Amino acid sequence: MEQIKKKICVFIGSRANYGSIKSALRAIKNHPALELQIVAGASALLDKYGEVADLIEKDGFTISDRVHMIVEGSTPLTMAKSTGFGLSELATSFANLKPDVVLVVGDRYEVMAAAVAATFMNIPLAHTMGGEVSGSIDESTRHAITKLAHVHFPASVVARERIIKLGENPNNIYHVGCPRMDEVASILDDTSVPVAQFEGVGTIVDVTKPFLFVSQHPVTTEYGQGEKQMRSILQAIKQLNIPTIMLWPNADAGAEELARAIRKYREHESSDGPAMHFFKNLPMNVYFHFMNRAACMIGNSSSLVREGEFIGTPGVLVGTRQNNRLRGKNVIQVDYDTQEILNAVRQQLAHGSYERGKLYGEGTAGEKIADVLAAHEHTLQKTITY
Amino acid sequence: MEQIKKKICVFIGSRANYGSIKSALRAIKNHPALELQIVAGASALLDKYGEVADLIEKDGFTISDRVHMIVEGSTPLTMAKSTGFGLSELATSFANLKPDVVLVVGDRYEVMAAAVAATFMNIPLAHTMGGEVSGSIDESTRHAITKLAHVHFPASVVARERIIKLGENPNNIYHVGCPRMDEVASILDDTSVPVAQFEGVGTIVDVTKPFLFVSQHPVTTEYGQGEKQMRSILQAIKQLNIPTIMLWPNADAGAEELARAIRKYREHESSDGPAMHFFKNLPMNVYFHFMNRAACMIGNSSSLVREGEFIGTPGVLVGTRQNNRLRGKNVIQVDYDTQEILNAVRQQLAHGSYERGKLYGEGTAGEKIADVLAAHEHTLQKTITY
Amino acid sequence: MEQIKKKICVFIGSRANYGSIKSALRAIKNHPALELQIVAGASALLDKYGEVADLIEKDGFTISDRVHMIVEGSTPLTMAKSTGFGLSELATSFANLKPDVVLVVGDRYEVMAAAVAATFMNIPLAHTMGGEVSGSIDESTRHAITKLAHVHFPASVVARERIIKLGENPNNIYHVGCPRMDEVASILDDTSVPVAQFEGVGTIVDVTKPFLFVSQHPVTTEYGQGEKQMRSILQAIKQLNIPTIMLWPNADAGAEELARAIRKYREHESSDGPAMHFFKNLPMNVYFHFMNRAACMIGNSSSLVREGEFIGTPGVLVGTRQNNRLRGKNVIQVDYDTQEILNAVRQQLAHGSYERGKLYGEGTAGEKIADVLAAHEHTLQKTITY
Amino acid sequence: MEQIKKKICVFIGSRANYGSIKSALRAIKNHPALELQIVAGASALLDKYGEVADLIEKDGFTISDRVHMIVEGSTPLTMAKSTGFGLSELATSFANLKPDVVLVVGDRYEVMAAAVAATFMNIPLAHTMGGEVSGSIDESTRHAITKLAHVHFPASVVARERIIKLGENPNNIYHVGCPRMDEVASILDDTSVPVAQFEGVGTIVDVTKPFLFVSQHPVTTEYGQGEKQMRSILQAIKQLNIPTIMLWPNADAGAEELARAIRKYREHESSDGPAMHFFKNLPMNVYFHFMNRAACMIGNSSSLVREGEFIGTPGVLVGTRQNNRLRGKNVIQVDYDTQEILNAVRQQLAHGSYERGKLYGEGTAGEKIADVLAAHEHTLQKTITY
Repeated sequence: MEQIKKKICVFIGSRANYGSIKSALRAIKNHPALELQIVAGASALLDKYGEVADLIEKDGFTISDRVHMIVEGSTPLTMAKSTGFGLSELATSFANLKPDVVLVVGDRYEVMAAAVAATFMNIPLAHTMGGEVSGSIDESTRHAITKLAHVHFPASVVARERIIKLGENPNNIYHVGCPRMDEVASILDDTSVPVAQFEGVGTIVDVTKPFLFVSQHPVTTEYGQGEKQMRSILQAIKQLNIPTIMLWPNADAGAEELARAIRKYREHESSDGPAMHFFKNLPMNVYFHFMNRAACMIGNSSSLVREGEFIGTPGVLVGTRQNNRLRGKNVIQVDYDTQEILNAVRQQLAHGSYERGKLYGEGTAGEKIADVLAAHEHTLQKTITY
Repeated sequence: MEQIKKKICVFIGSRANYGSIKSALRAIKNHPALELQIVAGASALLDKYGEVADLIEKDGFTISDRVHMIVEGSTPLTMAKSTGFGLSELATSFANLKPDVVLVVGDRYEVMAAAVAATFMNIPLAHTMGGEVSGSIDESTRHAITKLAHVHFPASVVARERIIKLGENPNNIYHVGCPRMDEVASILDDTSVPVAQFEGVGTIVDVTKPFLFVSQHPVTTEYGQGEKQMRSILQAIKQLNIPTIMLWPNADAGAEELARAIRKYREHESSDGPAMHFFKNLPMNVYFHFMNRAACMIGNSSSLVREGEFIGTPGVLVGTRQNNRLRGKNVIQVDYDTQEILNAVRQQLAHGSYERGKLYGEGTAGEKIADVLAAHEHTLQKTITY
Repeated sequence: MEQIKKKICVFIGSRANYGSIKSALRAIKNHPALELQIVAGASALLDKYGEVADLIEKDGFTISDRVHMIVEGSTPLTMAKSTGFGLSELATSFANLKPDVVLVVGDRYEVMAAAVAATFMNIPLAHTMGGEVSGSIDESTRHAITKLAHVHFPASVVARERIIKLGENPNNIYHVGCPRMDEVASILDDTSVPVAQFEGVGTIVDVTKPFLFVSQHPVTTEYGQGEKQMRSILQAIKQLNIPTIMLWPNADAGAEELARAIRKYREHESSDGPAMHFFKNLPMNVYFHFMNRAACMIGNSSSLVREGEFIGTPGVLVGTRQNNRLRGKNVIQVDYDTQEILNAVRQQLAHGSYERGKLYGEGTAGEKIADVLAAHEHTLQKTITY
Repeated sequence: MEQIKKKICVFIGSRANYGSIKSALRAIKNHPALELQIVAGASALLDKYGEVADLIEKDGFTISDRVHMIVEGSTPLTMAKSTGFGLSELATSFANLKPDVVLVVGDRYEVMAAAVAATFMNIPLAHTMGGEVSGSIDESTRHAITKLAHVHFPASVVARERIIKLGENPNNIYHVGCPRMDEVASILDDTSVPVAQFEGVGTIVDVTKPFLFVSQHPVTTEYGQGEKQMRSILQAIKQLNIPTIMLWPNADAGAEELARAIRKYREHESSDGPAMHFFKNLPMNVYFHFMNRAACMIGNSSSLVREGEFIGTPGVLVGTRQNNRLRGKNVIQVDYDTQEILNAVRQQLAHGSYERGKLYGEGTAGEKIADVLAAHEHTLQKTITY
């Protein structure tokens, strides 16, 4: 007699989402009591962000549905519209797939859309990466999703405590660690990863020598400031005159502003600066090997704080985007100020690599998530604990 | 030199919303430092719910925008779609009106849509009726909106404490009382309110003699149970054989189920039961005079708990929809069970009216809200307090 | 070796749609080279229009997808929004079902949505009831759909000629007759159809004695006139004082206006008039038996002109909605004028039933449509013939 | 006493749209009886297509509303979804602006959205560039829009005749010529236009010496073929080895395919080919000066046929996209075949420039359109003429 498997529908809306849940996908797929459904949507479907959906399939997963939901424009208005449109579109997808649980990752607007859709359709909602603290709009979105979710998978002990304080029932909160560290651990063990730069534009950087690794994204609550912010970093790099690998900003409102700063720099100033190589995106394995080798990482990507702590990457965190995110010793935070950035990078160059940390788990999060999803008794009606 | 007024955009998505914010609308409109914008949407625009938008205009307010957003169907799927569609539509409205603050009321899906739209458009969000506890999906929605909101106007001391526990900055939380009580107080003072029943269908009930007042709504997390639930109430009424005034269920998912039970009762059983009069909706003033005169109120409307406590109406609360909502002595809670309902109603008939309470404020909430909105320094970036 | 069947996706958006294509559905379902897919949407999903989707399933068909698409409001704005929302939703449906042909019926806004969705998704579009002429917005919509469609199934010779004049390739135009007549023929043969009136509200009408049958719908280009128009008919009925069966108006923009006139009449004037019985909808078989027995049919329903000609029902066509629609001898057209309506009805009562006509086919349209769909070589690229 | 001006709302959804209506915008703006409203939407709002909205404002026009409507993805599904979403969004815009006439240009999907929105909202629709014949999906869309439109402004005598044949009332059809030629004429008169290439990527081309000018767009009905098609052109250019200026493909479904071919060529083959300079877009004046100077223009842009005939540019039309579009002597049409393209280009190089033509008007279309809009009595109800 065949067992009826619990259907777990994982929504993946971006490259970062995928990296943050991949080990759990594998564990769910392999779990005898679970059936994996993947809904890929938002920027995970777009060529310009490296068509993550294709990558997911290349990795051996089946995509159950593809949900286009981004209204073009990159403004706060289109971000709200994309959220609304995506909510309506994801509702169709969930109605067709009839999952027993919807699992979402993190705190971006498309994740909010998925969370609200599941909630209003009476589908239990599981959430990873809740209970953390950061700057930007993500801070509000993340905690709002926690208040909608029925099962929580915080990445750290601190995050678990915070979810309890938010009035969630401790029985529904499972500290599992961050699935991303599962990936990082196995990637760094794999010495066969090519660190040559076959794609991207600009000048190839020799990663056997000291180089900078930059990943700066728009801060949605500072809309209108992006160009100036990006310029402060570019000026610092120019003065440091160390070869640099730079990631293209993600698709949030304000992305065009940062892109403009980069384009202007490339056209008018890059000839006086160091070699620079730009990537719209990087395979995750290359990304973490770059983090592992970089003399210093600069920017406001969460990876600088999270995986950076795990790997021990010297980091200079620029601006408010990761404010209050749990961090280890590897990070120096500075303002959008060329001189401050310069000083901090020099301090990190002098220090060199840090020891590996365990703030965000030990590399077993994916398995734990699958086991919990199989065993947990989901109840729809939530009640605050106080 | 003319002062630039702060633009306060109030979203009204239902008849209940309007009643819960009307006194604040008046105070905002009259405040020298504020400009009132009203966006009417969702069921507030529909004839079948009594075209609340027209009522708003008759009351002397100007409606800045009308936002149709309900996708017909009354299922969880269409509820999610309405939320998404409404979110996108409200974003347009906010982009055109450019408010300095968006003020929303309560916890229904269309309020979620307005809250998310404002949040992602970087408009400070103010919220009334946060921090309360209830059953149903509203429980999740309410606290999620609190985590998005920048200013909070809880109705009770208990609610204020709960918002603080949710990690909101106490400086942004103002205990003002419930604006609905402002209305109730002045309505009950007005002895000229007609309590005759000019509209509705069924048999007119003599409200100078003992009568029952029933208001039961769908419980969205118990989708599929509505018809049976409604039947348990109708059977109790049949046995009590006391003339009854009944409100039509609101537009949530599942409304059709309750309506079906009522239609079947009317067609096949009503001849053996007491006189019954059905209203799709009632003018607020008539509604509260009915509550003031009813021998007993039955159902799961929040008014039974909130205004009921203020007025002193004997109430029988049926089912889970108001679970854990702060309540006074006037309420007996029972299950969807005809016998339990019968017993509780008889107990209340024996008791008679209760004394007036102050759990939900003293009738000055609207003025307080306007004053706070004028004085409060709004900051967009939120950070959890722990 | 199993043959790959051609997938024919039929969109049904209203009760009228279903009646107009039912015999073709049966023929497609039974055709060895075809696979039937049914997408039910718009008012075909709504309880208040009699949940046509349930009826379709009771008739033994399988519904492949249900697409909610009506934005509540019944105004020109919500009609446009419903069309847009529906277009987007139907696109999802077609993407999931991957039909080889989409077949649409008639000229309403939801049909426009389906036609545009199919066209832009490179799916060959088949269309019935093209090439006809009428008043109202349907006139524009119908010919626009013809210009999008790849295969045409006109109901009459005149309609076929008109489609050729519109520049369509004669090889893609098949004169098959109206599938609705297939139904009418078999229904009238079935003498077991109950003509008692188990549902509806009002007074039951004895259909073995002379009675009037009324079906008046909103005219979207005359938005704002509906209440007055409906009143002219109601006043005529009151003076004729003949028992009357009346259909509720359909869901087009302006429906609320007609409904208001009916409600006012019922509340304030009906006591002086004849017995009246109101139906939100009628089973098709009952409908046509009513047409077959009615002393006179009044209104602007297309059935008065089409099936009326086939059946021989004496008819009084009120207003512009069927202007220029191909009609037979059974119809007298009048303005929205009580006296004109009165005179025309009296003339028809004096005349009595007409002979059966063949303007709209001989009852074999469904079979012909299925055969053509199986055999036709569909090409996507259209080119006007002149 | 102030005259009430007729409000003319012009929808501009792309760079091409703007160029095709600019002279009419100016004439409407300056007309004493007209008030100009501009709604900019779709790709006209996007940075990557050169932010046409900004250009419109720089040219001294006021934009009344900006309507984001493109759902990212560039597939037939997202094209349909964008049309539906845009239709709903434009309906809001029209409801707010309350125009007396909506004027749309051409035949793209966003124009269909605007046309359907206006039609269902009972706003008279005016249309330019109807009655023409071409390949691709535009062929269907264009004639469907004609069947919705109330006033027609064909660009050529042939087009006017075709609109009459389509059953439109000749009284509503005004042969005015193509407004684009108004612009071309004045641009070519302006010898101050800079033909240096300050933007774009690649190698700057010396336009005082012979060069090729390439503009190839996706053919939506040949989705999936785009990469191969583009490659045939790139290979021909490589063999011709003449410096080339190339435009980036527009935003239709399939754009990504062409872009992929270009990227691959640039990465792997461009070193063996001639100098190439790529532009995402060009100022219109530079564009036409390039057409005026190019040794040969290659591709499937309509400009090759229309403005090319007016200017006398030697052209090689590749593939089906302009099939049957009215054309003059300046064009040789070929298949997606490198050798055919090569031969045709060589033939044109041997011939050199052609004489100026008048197929598409004489440069007075804008003024004529404004005069007609002011004088024409608009009636909503359409009836086919046969």
